[in-house]
Amino acid sequence: MVKIGILGVGTVGESVAKILLENADIIEARAGKKIVPVLGAVRDLNKPRDVSIPLTDDPGEVIESADVDIVVELMGGIEKPYRLVRKALEAGKPVVTANKALLAYHRYELQEIAGEIPLFYEASVAGGIPIIGALRNGLSANHIESIKGIMNGTCNYMLTKMIQEGVAYEEVLKEAQELGYAEADPTFDVGGYDAAHKLLILGSIAYGIDAKPEEIIIEGIEEISPTDVEFAREFGYEIKLLGIAKKGEKGVEMRVHATMIPAKSMIAKVDGVMNAVSVVGDRVGETMFYGPGAGGDATASAVIADIVEIVRGNSGPMLGYKKGLESGLPLVPPEAIVTQYYLKLKVLDEPGVLAKVTSTLGEFGISIESMLQKPSRLADRVRLLFTTHQCEERKMKEAIEALKKLDVVEEKVTMIRIEK
Amino acid sequence: MVKIGILGVGTVGESVAKILLENADIIEARAGKKIVPVLGAVRDLNKPRDVSIPLTDDPGEVIESADVDIVVELMGGIEKPYRLVRKALEAGKPVVTANKALLAYHRYELQEIAGEIPLFYEASVAGGIPIIGALRNGLSANHIESIKGIMNGTCNYMLTKMIQEGVAYEEVLKEAQELGYAEADPTFDVGGYDAAHKLLILGSIAYGIDAKPEEIIIEGIEEISPTDVEFAREFGYEIKLLGIAKKGEKGVEMRVHATMIPAKSMIAKVDGVMNAVSVVGDRVGETMFYGPGAGGDATASAVIADIVEIVRGNSGPMLGYKKGLESGLPLVPPEAIVTQYYLKLKVLDEPGVLAKVTSTLGEFGISIESMLQKPSRLADRVRLLFTTHQCEERKMKEAIEALKKLDVVEEKVTMIRIEK
Repeated sequence: MVKIGILGVGTVGESVAKILLENADIIEARAGKKIVPVLGAVRDLNKPRDVSIPLTDDPGEVIESADVDIVVELMGGIEKPYRLVRKALEAGKPVVTANKALLAYHRYELQEIAGEIPLFYEASVAGGIPIIGALRNGLSANHIESIKGIMNGTCNYMLTKMIQEGVAYEEVLKEAQELGYAEADPTFDVGGYDAAHKLLILGSIAYGIDAKPEEIIIEGIEEISPTDVEFAREFGYEIKLLGIAKKGEKGVEMRVHATMIPAKSMIAKVDGVMNAVSVVGDRVGETMFYGPGAGGDATASAVIADIVEIVRGNSGPMLGYKKGLESGLPLVPPEAIVTQYYLKLKVLDEPGVLAKVTSTLGEFGISIESMLQKPSRLADRVRLLFTTHQCEERKMKEAIEALKKLDVVEEKVTMIRIEK
Repeated sequence: MVKIGILGVGTVGESVAKILLENADIIEARAGKKIVPVLGAVRDLNKPRDVSIPLTDDPGEVIESADVDIVVELMGGIEKPYRLVRKALEAGKPVVTANKALLAYHRYELQEIAGEIPLFYEASVAGGIPIIGALRNGLSANHIESIKGIMNGTCNYMLTKMIQEGVAYEEVLKEAQELGYAEADPTFDVGGYDAAHKLLILGSIAYGIDAKPEEIIIEGIEEISPTDVEFAREFGYEIKLLGIAKKGEKGVEMRVHATMIPAKSMIAKVDGVMNAVSVVGDRVGETMFYGPGAGGDATASAVIADIVEIVRGNSGPMLGYKKGLESGLPLVPPEAIVTQYYLKLKVLDEPGVLAKVTSTLGEFGISIESMLQKPSRLADRVRLLFTTHQCEERKMKEAIEALKKLDVVEEKVTMIRIEK
C-alpha cells in the first residue's frame, strides 16, 4: 500500500482524494499497489468543508509523517510551497505538484534538489491533457521545432464567444465571471500570465531554456475588439491566445500573446474552455493534444497519473533530460523576435494618407503583405488594416511609435502577431 | 552505450537507424546514455539498399549477438515475428515493436512471456501519436468510457476527398493509389482491418479485453457513396472510418466501421491522412490526440521514444495494468451492439410506400429520428433516408432483410452507424 499526503485540500485536492477512493480498483490494477490518501493539510481547520481524508493545519506534519510515502502539493503560491516541496524531497519523498507558478520560478532549483527522487508535475500544464508525458517521453526522439498552445480556458472561452457571437470584450468578461470561468480580478488569466507559466515549463522540457516570466513577452486579450475578430476572418485567420516556444536561427523564441492563426489549422478549431497544445517535431511532424485545461477532476486525473508512475517505479528525469541539452540554444530577447504582424489604424480620409503610412512602415524595413481599407463610423475617417511580412519586433515597435506621431493617424495603433 | 538491433530494415527500420544517428545529441541528453544502432536483419542481402548499419540475413544473429541490448521488430507478418520476439524476450532482451498484426493476435501471450522485461509498442497504433503512453500512463486514474479513433490515414484521406470534393469512391481510390497512399490491393486499409488491429490493442489497455479480429465488427468504406456524404451533411454529420471501443451496461463494444459523427465534434475536423484518437475518461472528460499515423520518420519517432523509456529504466506493465482489471467486462457480441443508424433506400414513388417501410421498421422495434425524401434519377423512384433512434444491431440486421423483401424497395439498403 502506498500512502498519499496532500498539501492543500481545495477543489483539486478533494478530487484527488475522492478519485483515489472511488476509482481504487482500476488505479490498483494499473499501479500494481493500493494507493490510499491518508492525510491532508489545510490553512484553516475551522472552515467547514466536505472532504474524504483526515486533516491537519500543519503541512510539516504531512511531510514528516512516517505514514506518508508520496507528497502531493496543491497549495498555490510560490515561496511557501517551494520550501515545503524542498523539505519533502530532502526527506527522500517523491512529490507530485500541479503548481505552475512554483515551477515557472523554481523548476531548475527543484530539479537540482530532486536528483533521483521523482518530482512530477503533469497537472501543472493544461490540466487533463498528458502533454508533459508526451513531450518528455513520447516525442523524445525529436528536436522540437515549435510548441503552440491554447493553455488558458478562460481566454479561449472569451475569444470563442467574441468570434462566434461578435460580442465585445467587456461583455464577454462579465459573462465569464458570472459563469465562474473568470475571477473577479481576471488579470492573471486574461493578461496571459497563467499561460506564460505553463509555456515556461514546456519550454524547459523541449529546449532546456531557463527563463523567468519577466524575460518573455506576455500579453493578453484585453485589447482585442470585434473589429479585429471580423477582419481576422477576412484575412483567413482566427484569434487565439497562444503560448509559443519556437526554435529559430538565433535561438528559442518564447512568448504569450493574442495571435492570428490560419483558420484551417487544427488548433484554430479548438473552441470554448478547452485547451490544446500543438507540437511540431523534426521527425514526427505535427501532433496536437486536446482536452480540458482545468477543473478539479481533470486536474486530479493528471495528479494521480503521476502518482501511478511513481508507484510503478518510473522516475524519468524531471525536465526530460538527464544530461544538459547540447543545443545550448539561448532565449531570443523579446525585441529580437521575428514574426508577421497585423496592424489596425484609424486615419484621416484624405489624399496622400496611405502613402504616408506605407512609407513610414517602409522606413523601418517593413513590407506589407495585404491591406484592407474600411469605412469608419466617422465620415472623415477610415480604418486601415495591414498584415505585414516578417520583421523584427524592435522595428515594429519603432514603426508603431512613428505611426502614432503622424498627424493623419488617430487613436492608438492595434498590433496583433500572426503565426502561420 | 546501449546497442540496438533491428529486425526488418525497410522504410521504418532505416528511419530508426538514421534518426538514432542524426539526432544522437538530443536522444542521449534525454535518455542519459548513447543509443547506437549496430545491426539489422533483412530477408535478402543482395537487394540494393541505402542503409546506415551493418546487415545480416539471419534474424537469430541480431537476437543472440552479445552486441545487441534492445531488439526492434519491424518485419511485419505475424507468426515469424512472434517466434523472434519470443526468443528475444526469453533471452532477457527488451523488445520494441511497431507490428500491430502481431499484437492483434498475440498480445496476451507476449505479455506473459515478457513478464518484467520491457515490451513496448507505441508505434503500433497511430504512428507518431503517443496514444499508448497517454492511455497507459497519462489517463491511468480513469475508467475509460470510450475510445474513438481515426486510425487509418488511407481511409481518412479518401473520405476527406469524397466529402470536400464530392468525388466517388472508385475515383478517389485510384488517386490514392497513384499518390502511394493506398496499396495496389487496398483491402487491408479500406476494409477496416488495419484500424481493427489498432483498436484491439487500445481496447486491451483500456479494458483488458482479449478479443481477436474475428470477434468484432470490421467494415470498411467501400460502400460509401457521394449521396451518403451529401445526406450526412444535411443531417449535421461527417463520415469517418472510426475504431470504437466503448463501455456500456452489457460490457465493452468494439467495432470498426464507417461512422456518421456530429460535424462539430473535434474528431470530425481531422482531415486528410492525419490520425486522431479521442478518449473519454470518467474523470478527465474528453481528450484527443492528433498526428501523423504513418510514414517512416513518424513511426520511427515512436519506436525511439520506447527505446528511450527502456534506457531510462522505465518498464511499465506491457498492457498498462499489473493486476487484472477488476472490471472483468465482457466483449459485447457484434449482434448485441446498440447504436443509432442511418438507412438509405430506393423505393417506388407511389402511395403507401412510406407507410410500408416505416411499419416494417416498427415491427422490429426501430423508431425513426429523422427522415428525408429525395428525388431519384429515375422518375418513378425516390430515395428515402432515415436516421433511427438507438436499437440493437440484431434487430437492425433483421429489419434490413425484411425491407429488402418488400416489393416496393429497390436495390440494396445502405446502413451506416451513427455515433454522437
